[in-house]
Amino acid sequence: MASIKEESSIKVFGGWQKVFSHDSKELGCCMKFGVFIPPQAESGPVPVVYWLSGLTCSEQNFITKAGSQQHAAKYGFLVVAPDTSPRGCNIEGEEESWDFGTGAGFYIDATEEKWKKNYRMYSYITKELPDVIAANFKIESDKASIMGHSMGGHGALICALKNPGQYKSVSAFSPICNPINCPWGVKAFTGYLGAENKDAWKEYDACELAKKYSGPPLEIFVDQGKSDNFLSQGQLLPDNLVGACAAGGVQIVLRMQEDYDHSYYFISTFMGEHFDHHAKFLKA
Amino acid sequence: MASIKEESSIKVFGGWQKVFSHDSKELGCCMKFGVFIPPQAESGPVPVVYWLSGLTCSEQNFITKAGSQQHAAKYGFLVVAPDTSPRGCNIEGEEESWDFGTGAGFYIDATEEKWKKNYRMYSYITKELPDVIAANFKIESDKASIMGHSMGGHGALICALKNPGQYKSVSAFSPICNPINCPWGVKAFTGYLGAENKDAWKEYDACELAKKYSGPPLEIFVDQGKSDNFLSQGQLLPDNLVGACAAGGVQIVLRMQEDYDHSYYFISTFMGEHFDHHAKFLKA
Repeated sequence: MASIKEESSIKVFGGWQKVFSHDSKELGCCMKFGVFIPPQAESGPVPVVYWLSGLTCSEQNFITKAGSQQHAAKYGFLVVAPDTSPRGCNIEGEEESWDFGTGAGFYIDATEEKWKKNYRMYSYITKELPDVIAANFKIESDKASIMGHSMGGHGALICALKNPGQYKSVSAFSPICNPINCPWGVKAFTGYLGAENKDAWKEYDACELAKKYSGPPLEIFVDQGKSDNFLSQGQLLPDNLVGACAAGGVQIVLRMQEDYDHSYYFISTFMGEHFDHHAKFLKA
Repeated sequence: MASIKEESSIKVFGGWQKVFSHDSKELGCCMKFGVFIPPQAESGPVPVVYWLSGLTCSEQNFITKAGSQQHAAKYGFLVVAPDTSPRGCNIEGEEESWDFGTGAGFYIDATEEKWKKNYRMYSYITKELPDVIAANFKIESDKASIMGHSMGGHGALICALKNPGQYKSVSAFSPICNPINCPWGVKAFTGYLGAENKDAWKEYDACELAKKYSGPPLEIFVDQGKSDNFLSQGQLLPDNLVGACAAGGVQIVLRMQEDYDHSYYFISTFMGEHFDHHAKFLKA
């Protein structure tokens, strides 16, 4: 197990918001991730909640703007918020778009030649990072949940749907629900997985995965702002996820929130209720 | 009354976080300020809380990182968060330091030739801005409180101490308490007020003002992190304020918070209790 290095440590809501860096084997680069350590961690192992951020974000956006620490401190959850993509891999074109390459790893394992060595965020999130967390923090190894925003909401959904039982619960804010049918997803999947390989695309699409889900009961909890520009642009397609969940027998609660947009203001407003959702399963 | 222009408007915690710009007469430039409009404002006038930010900040830092909106929505307070200084005045040297000029107005009225036309943040905060708010929002005109952080904590203290009765309550996070005796304050007061004019310095020093305060009872509420680097560097000097308040008969509660630093993580942790403090007076 490669070691982790503490980059910063700040007291907040009785716990500690830290940032660590480590050399990731999956990604072949140095990665940063935020960890909120709740006060309850001093007296024993605690559950873990993973947060996956959206396009253009680093590990910083969530920890500075989501107001999550107060809720994590209340329930005693360790909250892990990784960066959204490999950085500094010197791949031609990685810095050309805000919605592809750096800051836009899409939480999938690339198969295209140029990207396949580094752009393995799916394996990083579901395998390497949990191992790093288990090795370095006192956690209840069977109690993990996952949530995210936008591209990270997509990430949370596919990680939960593809790994039945690994996450006790999943929730998302304004997730990209059906990437194979929206411009962001088509661009990313074309680049990382190839234009022709549509079967591989389906393996990373929350709607396709929900339709064929089989595993322990999973209750998906989603908040979506009605005034979110990306909703009206057809990037998010939450109705498609509701339909797919019905077809696959997956429970879903989708709340359409009047007047709210795609920002961290929206996220912070409902963050407490997402922690309540995860607590139902992690504290059971 | 010059008009104000809405620059942005985002729903959060049931209210609206807006940013406005206007042409300030006191400052001779365009100024931005944040306004959180709580849901209660729909049914009648509400109290106002002013927030003054610290060195290098604009109107954005507080509204994105302090987690204030949840508390303002709970109590029904309009929260006004102005920028910290004039900008773009083309004064020679205004961009040379992070702790003087742009981003460092120090909430005083400059008297030195170079700065006196624009650097009038004290009059802006205590006179022009309240008039702008009263003209454009439905507020209870006799119910205002003020708080701030660091340089803005100093600003909140002097605004309250110099204008007995104008603010029902005052609180501060890690305020600069005794600027005439700390490096930041000496630099700013020398630049804006002149090296020789020490009587003018005292008119903007919270300790000097507390010693001679006479007005309605004022209970100052201060939180200070014990691991704040600027505390150990002698920039903040909260003990001097406690001594001055004792001499002047001003009530003060100073809470020294173990392990906390100077950041918005610290501020967000105790923001709810500062709103509780102001509510004691604004909802009385």
